Amino acid sequence: MELTTSSNIKVVTAKESKINSVDFENLTFGNVFTDHMLVCDYHDGAWDQPVIMPYESFTMDPSSRVFHYGQAIFEGMKAYKDDNDDVWLFRPDQNFERFNKSAVRLAMPEVPEEVFLGGLHKLLEVEKDWVKKGKGNTLYIRPFMIATGQGVIASPSNEYRFCVILSPAKAYYSGEVKVVIADHYSRAANGGIGAAKAAGNYSGQFYPTKLANEKGFQQVIWTDDATHTKLEEAGTMNVFFRINDTLYTAPTSERILDGVTRKSIVELAPTLGINVEVRPVLVSEIVEAAKNGTLKEIFGAGTAAVVNPIAGFSYQDTYYELPKLENSFAAIIKEKLTNIQHKLDTDTFGWTVKV
Amino acid sequence: MELTTSSNIKVVTAKESKINSVDFENLTFGNVFTDHMLVCDYHDGAWDQPVIMPYESFTMDPSSRVFHYGQAIFEGMKAYKDDNDDVWLFRPDQNFERFNKSAVRLAMPEVPEEVFLGGLHKLLEVEKDWVKKGKGNTLYIRPFMIATGQGVIASPSNEYRFCVILSPAKAYYSGEVKVVIADHYSRAANGGIGAAKAAGNYSGQFYPTKLANEKGFQQVIWTDDATHTKLEEAGTMNVFFRINDTLYTAPTSERILDGVTRKSIVELAPTLGINVEVRPVLVSEIVEAAKNGTLKEIFGAGTAAVVNPIAGFSYQDTYYELPKLENSFAAIIKEKLTNIQHKLDTDTFGWTVKV
Ligand SMILES: Cc1ncc(COP(=O)(O)O)c(C=O)c1O
Ligand SMILES: Cc1ncc(COP(=O)(O)O)c(C=O)c1O
Repeated sequence: MELTTSSNIKVVTAKESKINSVDFENLTFGNVFTDHMLVCDYHDGAWDQPVIMPYESFTMDPSSRVFHYGQAIFEGMKAYKDDNDDVWLFRPDQNFERFNKSAVRLAMPEVPEEVFLGGLHKLLEVEKDWVKKGKGNTLYIRPFMIATGQGVIASPSNEYRFCVILSPAKAYYSGEVKVVIADHYSRAANGGIGAAKAAGNYSGQFYPTKLANEKGFQQVIWTDDATHTKLEEAGTMNVFFRINDTLYTAPTSERILDGVTRKSIVELAPTLGINVEVRPVLVSEIVEAAKNGTLKEIFGAGTAAVVNPIAGFSYQDTYYELPKLENSFAAIIKEKLTNIQHKLDTDTFGWTVKV
Repeated sequence: MELTTSSNIKVVTAKESKINSVDFENLTFGNVFTDHMLVCDYHDGAWDQPVIMPYESFTMDPSSRVFHYGQAIFEGMKAYKDDNDDVWLFRPDQNFERFNKSAVRLAMPEVPEEVFLGGLHKLLEVEKDWVKKGKGNTLYIRPFMIATGQGVIASPSNEYRFCVILSPAKAYYSGEVKVVIADHYSRAANGGIGAAKAAGNYSGQFYPTKLANEKGFQQVIWTDDATHTKLEEAGTMNVFFRINDTLYTAPTSERILDGVTRKSIVELAPTLGINVEVRPVLVSEIVEAAKNGTLKEIFGAGTAAVVNPIAGFSYQDTYYELPKLENSFAAIIKEKLTNIQHKLDTDTFGWTVKV
């Protein structure tokens, strides 16, 4: 697959690069940004010409709808550099498609492919020095769209801004991750916006996560909001459970984000001799499996952390510790997926796309 | 009740007022703002001194958390001017309390009373000319708080901005309102943020409302997301149903906003000889009552529209028209409530507070 190009992009170069002031060995996820960003505004029913310009602040009216009604969506992707200094993306078409699905659900205009992928292509050419070689080094890509139209009336905006910002990254999580299985709070409603990567889905998770943190847990495993009996996502990741030698993950739904990492693992694992079943996963069976020793692993899956092993979980105040395995599925899958992404292993799936 | 005052507010006056350029007879809701706004920033665990300053744009980093994670809440209130040129608020303590409940649920810092109510008090003194006399004329008040901290990582911000903007208003809705009863989409999850006035609750309603609009309906009546059998809110209002001579409205819950208008009506109606019952209201009973002629009225209740009569509803593609009544409860209640708010009738409840 070739990455979309666009010749219709204006480039305004930053006077100076701040790259030499960045300590690439000690990065905190998501708080250093590169010299440039892509900006494209929508008004009067059409998109302007996209502009690559120096990373700088926006000027926004206090009545901008994003502040009042949360009309905002985003994506998360990464760029990788191989040993020949080529820059690669992982399944960017999936992020582009999902972005526009989110846009539709939030009553926002879809972003054209030339703007999203063509714009990203050009931006990565401009910022290629920010993608560092070496496994684990990535450039995190954050496309997002916000409602910039003015007026405190609860209806869709007529004006939007699409933007892509870039942040060099190392691994996302560090240390052991212990989770709480939600039995009261939830992240998504039936018929809600859980399947969209919408800003409003995240702020609602902060308070329950804070409560979990206060009890010594890093994340929450979300369950279905109606019955709290089905295990759906872990923090901001999809989630896999290994019982004996089979991996289980919930089917995507209105409440669950269709994660690129998740769907890649579902395809990849069988090629590594790991059996995957996509079906609803019940809290009761996981608790039971933890008790009888057949529950071997739980891990989150998402772009930021790739695969994030979970050390144990708490459910209704009982803590269940998971075994520490030598050759965990989490480690095998993470290794393989990371190698494909960094072009250290053959990509038989055609997932990697050269910039 | 006395309105909180604060002496710790800095005032920077606008050079010129734009009040003379505003056509107060032809206002569109929520898109003209007064000369000043109140701004108060939170950082390093504390609130700055609030500032009343000219209404102007914010400068915000592209990675500000409100853009990515929807950490944003708001309130909606109104100021009224009586015939003696005194300015009044309606139950401002309720909005203040609800704002801080929303803040807690969204993992945001609570706003002190001196800032929220004291700041509003001072702002209304500065902007008193923008509150026009005459029934139906109001100054809509929009307090809101957004996460201004930087970084594309899904965790609560450390920096926030609290702001109050003011918009002169006439009546909110015009014309007949026909609604669709939701049988697929929903606005709130069990264990979610539906009871908070959080930005993220609104953008999710836009798409289903657009679908309703395309079929000739103005609003959606939201049902519980798990079963779609209980009637919960109408658009961005609470909702009342009159069967024979009793009004029914759902109890507030995690999914339903505790509306100030709703709770005032629950107290007020009995004093007008109208019986109110707070209990779950089922779709099935409303459809049944519509069929057998006992369903007399449906109306929404909220600060913007006060009381908003509904002409008919559609459920699973059948349209049910409501009777046109001479002396509707909606009209009686709206008249009384509006008179109390505008100080044209005695406020035996102590709801009105002088600025
Ligand atoms: C709620 C949620 N679930 C799952 C994921 C994982 O999706 P992906 O693998 O596409 O990054 C994300 C994003 O990272 C997410 O925000
Ligand atoms: C979702 C929702 N329900 C109900 C209401 C009514 O609340 P209040 O009467 O306090 O304005 C509002 C706000 O107007 C709202 O946003």
